[in-house]
Amino acid sequence: MGIRVGVIGLGNMGADHTRTLHRFVSGATVTRVADINAERAAEIAAEIPTASIAPDGQTLIEDPDVDAVVIASHDATHAPLTLACLEASKPVLCEKPLAPTLESAAEVVAHENGRGLISLGFMRRFDPGYVELKAGIENPLVVHTRSRGVRSGPGADSATSITGSAIHDFDTIAWLLDSPITEVSWHAGKQSSHVNGLNDPQLMLVRTEDGVLSTVETYLNARFGYDIRCEVVCETHVVRLAEPVRTVVDAARQQSTRYAPDWRPRFADAYRLQLQAWVDAVAAGEPSPLANAHDGLVASAVADAAVASMQSGGDFVHVETLRSM
Amino acid sequence: MGIRVGVIGLGNMGADHTRTLHRFVSGATVTRVADINAERAAEIAAEIPTASIAPDGQTLIEDPDVDAVVIASHDATHAPLTLACLEASKPVLCEKPLAPTLESAAEVVAHENGRGLISLGFMRRFDPGYVELKAGIENPLVVHTRSRGVRSGPGADSATSITGSAIHDFDTIAWLLDSPITEVSWHAGKQSSHVNGLNDPQLMLVRTEDGVLSTVETYLNARFGYDIRCEVVCETHVVRLAEPVRTVVDAARQQSTRYAPDWRPRFADAYRLQLQAWVDAVAAGEPSPLANAHDGLVASAVADAAVASMQSGGDFVHVETLRSM
Amino acid sequence: MGIRVGVIGLGNMGADHTRTLHRFVSGATVTRVADINAERAAEIAAEIPTASIAPDGQTLIEDPDVDAVVIASHDATHAPLTLACLEASKPVLCEKPLAPTLESAAEVVAHENGRGLISLGFMRRFDPGYVELKAGIENPLVVHTRSRGVRSGPGADSATSITGSAIHDFDTIAWLLDSPITEVSWHAGKQSSHVNGLNDPQLMLVRTEDGVLSTVETYLNARFGYDIRCEVVCETHVVRLAEPVRTVVDAARQQSTRYAPDWRPRFADAYRLQLQAWVDAVAAGEPSPLANAHDGLVASAVADAAVASMQSGGDFVHVETLRSM
Amino acid sequence: MGIRVGVIGLGNMGADHTRTLHRFVSGATVTRVADINAERAAEIAAEIPTASIAPDGQTLIEDPDVDAVVIASHDATHAPLTLACLEASKPVLCEKPLAPTLESAAEVVAHENGRGLISLGFMRRFDPGYVELKAGIENPLVVHTRSRGVRSGPGADSATSITGSAIHDFDTIAWLLDSPITEVSWHAGKQSSHVNGLNDPQLMLVRTEDGVLSTVETYLNARFGYDIRCEVVCETHVVRLAEPVRTVVDAARQQSTRYAPDWRPRFADAYRLQLQAWVDAVAAGEPSPLANAHDGLVASAVADAAVASMQSGGDFVHVETLRSM
Repeated sequence: MGIRVGVIGLGNMGADHTRTLHRFVSGATVTRVADINAERAAEIAAEIPTASIAPDGQTLIEDPDVDAVVIASHDATHAPLTLACLEASKPVLCEKPLAPTLESAAEVVAHENGRGLISLGFMRRFDPGYVELKAGIENPLVVHTRSRGVRSGPGADSATSITGSAIHDFDTIAWLLDSPITEVSWHAGKQSSHVNGLNDPQLMLVRTEDGVLSTVETYLNARFGYDIRCEVVCETHVVRLAEPVRTVVDAARQQSTRYAPDWRPRFADAYRLQLQAWVDAVAAGEPSPLANAHDGLVASAVADAAVASMQSGGDFVHVETLRSM
Repeated sequence: MGIRVGVIGLGNMGADHTRTLHRFVSGATVTRVADINAERAAEIAAEIPTASIAPDGQTLIEDPDVDAVVIASHDATHAPLTLACLEASKPVLCEKPLAPTLESAAEVVAHENGRGLISLGFMRRFDPGYVELKAGIENPLVVHTRSRGVRSGPGADSATSITGSAIHDFDTIAWLLDSPITEVSWHAGKQSSHVNGLNDPQLMLVRTEDGVLSTVETYLNARFGYDIRCEVVCETHVVRLAEPVRTVVDAARQQSTRYAPDWRPRFADAYRLQLQAWVDAVAAGEPSPLANAHDGLVASAVADAAVASMQSGGDFVHVETLRSM
Repeated sequence: MGIRVGVIGLGNMGADHTRTLHRFVSGATVTRVADINAERAAEIAAEIPTASIAPDGQTLIEDPDVDAVVIASHDATHAPLTLACLEASKPVLCEKPLAPTLESAAEVVAHENGRGLISLGFMRRFDPGYVELKAGIENPLVVHTRSRGVRSGPGADSATSITGSAIHDFDTIAWLLDSPITEVSWHAGKQSSHVNGLNDPQLMLVRTEDGVLSTVETYLNARFGYDIRCEVVCETHVVRLAEPVRTVVDAARQQSTRYAPDWRPRFADAYRLQLQAWVDAVAAGEPSPLANAHDGLVASAVADAAVASMQSGGDFVHVETLRSM
Repeated sequence: MGIRVGVIGLGNMGADHTRTLHRFVSGATVTRVADINAERAAEIAAEIPTASIAPDGQTLIEDPDVDAVVIASHDATHAPLTLACLEASKPVLCEKPLAPTLESAAEVVAHENGRGLISLGFMRRFDPGYVELKAGIENPLVVHTRSRGVRSGPGADSATSITGSAIHDFDTIAWLLDSPITEVSWHAGKQSSHVNGLNDPQLMLVRTEDGVLSTVETYLNARFGYDIRCEVVCETHVVRLAEPVRTVVDAARQQSTRYAPDWRPRFADAYRLQLQAWVDAVAAGEPSPLANAHDGLVASAVADAAVASMQSGGDFVHVETLRSM
């Protein structure tokens, strides 16, 4: 039955992971699921004949029928559950963020102690578009990213937009360029009248160690659809993501293609390939090819610097903790 | 004031020609306009300070203040008015068709007697897209044309769809390939439920003297928009028209571009460039670079063959009169 | 370990299936592989730790460690090996064609006797683009398919191009429209100078029972790339496949996207999803959602009619055996 | 003969203007041309039968056979020649910049004294793509512009790149938004290794009075082609320029469209329509619909602020002179 996986947290993301593991990942069996909502746990378990319900995350992690753990529960639980996985010496794929603060993230990294047990869910690294984009880069000079969504989640503010959404672009920029982000400057102009308590859109300038200057636009309430763009300006060419569309329609005076309503259909392939790569590495006892704890720590440090820039009124803020990590 | 042009027929097409000549064509002055509807003539003349109203087409043609004539009146008038222009030895740009029957078209050609006075309004030859398409052809093997419109005109039937619309594709195929059409086979399948008394869409196979086999789809009631496509399959490459769009919009879960509602905005540039080329040739006393009377005759012969194929149930019908013309 | 699959024939296609089953299909284990070339069998078996080599197809089929069989060996072996699977009452996924002649295909179907054991590898039915295309059809009137490849296989002639390549378009048209093809008419015009003994490109008109008239262009030596297009003209809209590209590049005065060199990268997702759906159905004991033996028989009958039309000089040829099947 | 136009400066741009006026603009006649290079003047005059050579700009301006003047000579001559036109009370279309410094530009504006004689060549305002883009804007929040060229001119430095190239984007942003630019911040990251003495690419943040924050990327040595992009993020939709292409080619494993080598083919239509609009306004005695002297002054002030930001190390610099102008 291959790798026996337990999934903690069965919200939209966790349920998707569970189904993907069950239906589309070779060499994995979901044996346990857990959710603080017992009804939800029962509902998902009913879909997955191989899976039974664990009473809580801690119990799931310690279960001898669980070889590896996926954490998709509330952000606040990520650090303690990841620590429990480390305690149990079990590989864990944790959705970002690894921890609520840089300090606690660093603490988790310290506990990992180089064992390579932690993988972070920066799934864009497995999106076939991003993979082809990275392969097409030569002598990069500028990266432009655009992340537009339909609607921000409840309680979103400018800071959580950065730590929850822009953080994906921070990770991809560093990953695409193979160079860590060293400083970031935050800006906002006119705001959407559809939102309150949130700068939306936000615009950031990001500098990486290789000197490349990048722009990051995050617009969570763009309404029209979920649209992720990334363009890399190189010395003598430009390469960008194509829109991942399957059909084109002529109707009502328009030629059109469709946008996904949210990130899950857009990145379904990326999630599947990320899970497959993770399961393969666990099965082979090889290092995980996913983003690791250090990547998560660095991305969080960039997000913190962006928030600090926002609070300072737009100055470039150094990613201070980078060297020490 | 350059070439003094008279325009006969001030319907949509003729009014467009008049305005284009007046506003956008260098070296031309519209001096006379005529329409059987006096009110319409007055309306258009009021827009064009240089133009006065001629009582009828014949008078306009004979007017000494008219150097060259555009005929955009009802199809039935094309042949007699063109003959009048020949009589007056004045260059004429006649909208297709040149004449209602091949016989009368041949008669007009005979009267022209090689003087090169007649130009036919196959404006696609001046569309910048088609011009670039033609330049990109090398060792052509197949041409595919698609002409889709919103709604057929009143009284349209299958035959008039061929002689009025598909005829443009017949002319462009021969022009693109520099090879006359030798036979044509007509087909229809399931028909739009929105139309009666008309095969719509229609599908034709067309063979040119060079052996190239082409497909022509004519769908006048496609509803969604006016969309003209043309693709040429060559030995080692394919070249096709791009959609002539200026902006792209993300809205309402779609990325979209717009279709024109009819042929006039789609081919506005082609009409302007055709008129400019015509006026330039008239001014220089040089041969017209537009489609000529013989081209019109040949296109009509192909249309007749297509109608004959339709009546025969889909056989390939030879464009019989070709050799004799 | 889920469904234990044996793969017969380890050429490019069979090797791809083996790897896809092993690496990307949930619930399947490749337990046996067989190839007439022992070296090749050893090479592939070395990649797949769960698989051992069977001396021949027949032995593989009878092996108690094989629950289901994939046949990707030479076309001539399809019918006898499929019959052996039927004999052993094991589900089989056979690459097309099911049999070299309609008669032998009908014989296979007769032996299956409604047990639903046979699935045919018309993988386009599982391509996400085709799936979305089918979902977007309403009141279809015309289908246009274009299948362009880089280079035809050794020994290809006009007939094998139809039975080996155009047959995919025959199956997709019938599947997209939910209506069987009733007649077909074959045409060829100017031919590529790069090939001998082969009409290339070929053009076919295809009529389905619902009255829809379709065009099929097959051009195996188009050189520029592997490009599959499909467009469905409906009453008030048109829907077509988008090009499956991931990145766009600006370089050397061009904006460009890439074509696959052959069908395997183009349809990698389709093959994976087809294998997954097949394994899922076998595991659940449910009817296969893949094309079945009857679909294969019908597609072959259409191909035969196309060849007959070719031999007759382009007449519409009825798919005669349709009713009796 | 309509408006009699004299053209001063017959370099690439001036020669293009001369030919466009002669061949494609209705109601204009080029009567005089002048260039400091007598050979060049003779060459262009030989193409234009209506034009004779004026010995110098000043003489051309004073010539009674010249109703209106186009200035396309060296930047250093713009201010004195424009002043001469004002002296002669003749309408003038001056290529940007109006003057080398803000002070001298302000002096020119003062001499114009509200007479509306000066038009500035910000031709993008007449590009059909930009016109459609502007019409599609509603509740704008962010503008992104990208101006990429093949190669910078001789002697280009970072400052002249701003005053000569980015200035077009400054004008279009203000024009698109109907709101003046109030501050600008300049940034550069990694530079192309193909250039010296020039920051290339450059990146600017621009804020308009309406609060909209925009990004301007200027990359003059992008090598791959001349590519102008502009995207406006609105509250619930995004609208952007489509690439102005006419054909699509499949060849050599790619589907591709072409880039122009420089700005002249890219903006040929814009130049033509700008000249036509200018001639029409002059003929009608109506206010020019082109950018006026004040627009030129404001764009130069923004360019100066950008240069000041560059010198300051990236601070936002207020467009100080705005209020006083």
